[in-house]
Amino acid sequence: MRKLAILGVTGSIGTQTLDVIRKFKDKFELIAVSANKNFDKMIDIIGEFRPQFVTMMDKEAFKKVQSYCAEKKLKTNVFFGMDGLIEISTLSSVDMIVTAVVGMVGLLPTMAAIKSGKDIALANKETLVTGGELVIKEAKKNNVKILPVDSEHGAIFQCLQGNDRTSVKSIIVTASGGPFRRKKLDELKDVTVDQALKHPRWNMGKKISIDSATLMNKGLEVIEAHWLFNMDYDNIKVVVHPESVIHSMVEYSDGSVIAQLAATDMRLPIQYALTYPNRYGAVVKRVNFFKLGSLTFEEPDLDTFKPLKLAYEAGRIGGTMPAILNATNEEAVKLFIHKKIKFLDIGDILEESMNKFEVKNSYKLEDILEIDSKVKEYICNKFD
Amino acid sequence: MRKLAILGVTGSIGTQTLDVIRKFKDKFELIAVSANKNFDKMIDIIGEFRPQFVTMMDKEAFKKVQSYCAEKKLKTNVFFGMDGLIEISTLSSVDMIVTAVVGMVGLLPTMAAIKSGKDIALANKETLVTGGELVIKEAKKNNVKILPVDSEHGAIFQCLQGNDRTSVKSIIVTASGGPFRRKKLDELKDVTVDQALKHPRWNMGKKISIDSATLMNKGLEVIEAHWLFNMDYDNIKVVVHPESVIHSMVEYSDGSVIAQLAATDMRLPIQYALTYPNRYGAVVKRVNFFKLGSLTFEEPDLDTFKPLKLAYEAGRIGGTMPAILNATNEEAVKLFIHKKIKFLDIGDILEESMNKFEVKNSYKLEDILEIDSKVKEYICNKFD
Repeated sequence: MRKLAILGVTGSIGTQTLDVIRKFKDKFELIAVSANKNFDKMIDIIGEFRPQFVTMMDKEAFKKVQSYCAEKKLKTNVFFGMDGLIEISTLSSVDMIVTAVVGMVGLLPTMAAIKSGKDIALANKETLVTGGELVIKEAKKNNVKILPVDSEHGAIFQCLQGNDRTSVKSIIVTASGGPFRRKKLDELKDVTVDQALKHPRWNMGKKISIDSATLMNKGLEVIEAHWLFNMDYDNIKVVVHPESVIHSMVEYSDGSVIAQLAATDMRLPIQYALTYPNRYGAVVKRVNFFKLGSLTFEEPDLDTFKPLKLAYEAGRIGGTMPAILNATNEEAVKLFIHKKIKFLDIGDILEESMNKFEVKNSYKLEDILEIDSKVKEYICNKFD
Repeated sequence: MRKLAILGVTGSIGTQTLDVIRKFKDKFELIAVSANKNFDKMIDIIGEFRPQFVTMMDKEAFKKVQSYCAEKKLKTNVFFGMDGLIEISTLSSVDMIVTAVVGMVGLLPTMAAIKSGKDIALANKETLVTGGELVIKEAKKNNVKILPVDSEHGAIFQCLQGNDRTSVKSIIVTASGGPFRRKKLDELKDVTVDQALKHPRWNMGKKISIDSATLMNKGLEVIEAHWLFNMDYDNIKVVVHPESVIHSMVEYSDGSVIAQLAATDMRLPIQYALTYPNRYGAVVKRVNFFKLGSLTFEEPDLDTFKPLKLAYEAGRIGGTMPAILNATNEEAVKLFIHKKIKFLDIGDILEESMNKFEVKNSYKLEDILEIDSKVKEYICNKFD
């Protein structure tokens, strides 16, 4: 029985994680969960999984869950806010934390979980993008496994199994290319939010859908791959593969390439992270090679999709630069969704931000949180 | 330093193995080699690699090599025939035998090598197709590794690394489809030997080229895969993949498929078998995803390509049936090359043979050799 805590249980990754746990009831015990403010979903989850610990990030929702549990005479311990999030990330009865929260809020509880020796099933992108160096150093120190919960890094992780890391030549991250694949700059000048949200392969939240349209999503994944797999940026390649059947690949020194293929269903990488090094039965549909059609590959267009190019640059510069990039991107995406800027402005704002803010080469956790706030405030004010 | 003996050093796999050894001179020492009768090639190899032991299968060639070594005052020990082949397969100074001989001649020395504890880099198809049960049992008993030297089984072997065998759902052997892919029975009635020899992807010997045209090659690989990877026939699938970029795949219980991709160059699976579990630098060209074009997959047509269907049947029946199939096929291919039968007759002759000869369910090495001779004699006489 693996004992789990899920941070961000009511979100997309969180609910899909519950799906996996449902399928393998004898393998997992859900000890603790957190959510932002979704009371209805949370009481459903409490009813079904009976977690011993619950954290709500929103004060009102926290009070409602607390009253609900008291009323129903449940023995659930209900916590509030960041303290509550850290509380359930460090419980002695938990083996593994699934960090499915979105945004910078994931950084502190993940670090706390690592320090208390929990394995991490990591779905929160910001953790490694902004704090990669600290997180990986702490994970090594505490002998903690960081298991990626997304289709690309999950694929890479699988393709690395049973091979010596010194024999890895490069990591090949595949990209669907998003809704604007093959479009040129002048065709992207006036694209609407609705057009940008229409992802051809995956059904995802708004932020990540826009990131897929700008290819920033791949940029963030490149930075994550750098930290997860200890790989130079020169040896992390992005290949556009519009059919999204191959989820990523590893190229070895001898010329062999190992690839992972699967249905486009997040529950598979979630399941693998939760069951590693074992594999259980399939929650997802199997690949039917006779119905695949053809698989194709293209070079990403770094001039049109500047955010991907900037992400490589930010990664190579290192220090707090990826945090600057990430904070700027979060705000720029919001501005675009609220129709305050145009699609191509996202790349320009990223570039401006990377030129404007001073980079710290060595940093502590507080530096990351500080630069994050500073950048976001600056951009908010500028476009308000 | 891994110490090698190569059986069949002047053939296609043998010379490509030498290419790999040339590239990694500090990793391998070539202790012993054998050839059938190619004197010129053998003295070149003796000159370059200075093996301590040489076996020639042909009496004349044996004498010539012996005289040559005496004349040149070389300390090479020169042996003759099957005794010589077994001699160099069991040398105490050798770690690994590369069995690159073609045909049933590989069976006895491979068994002898296994019994004396040598690891086997296995390129000889007949060994597992005809004697799989005996070979695998003996390998287990002697704790000997059998490393496949062909692109498909090499790929499967790589895709299995780092995973528990109980989590394997199926093995997917890819097939180029050969020169007659998508052709129907009536289009194949009158195809010529030259047409059948024109393989679209690989440049190979005549026998294996015809086997690729009939898909018998895949049939033999399915039987090999059954023994190498301890997999039921129901869970070994053949997928036609005309671009031959994916060399085979493994499907896991959870729905993940792991694939190996590489250039169509035999030196890569040879190298992997020789260096396993390590990987060294690339002898072969790397995969360029931006120049691949598209990868496609089709269902094999078992009605048109009856030999593949029959191979599955023979494998499932087991015992000496695969040996009957293999012997029949060897003779039928010869008859086709010598224009004594038509292309589609190959399948009919296989079927007739499988109905005609009695199958022994449990067998010894001698039974295999006996049925092989008996079948070949029968078919020879019938078409003489």
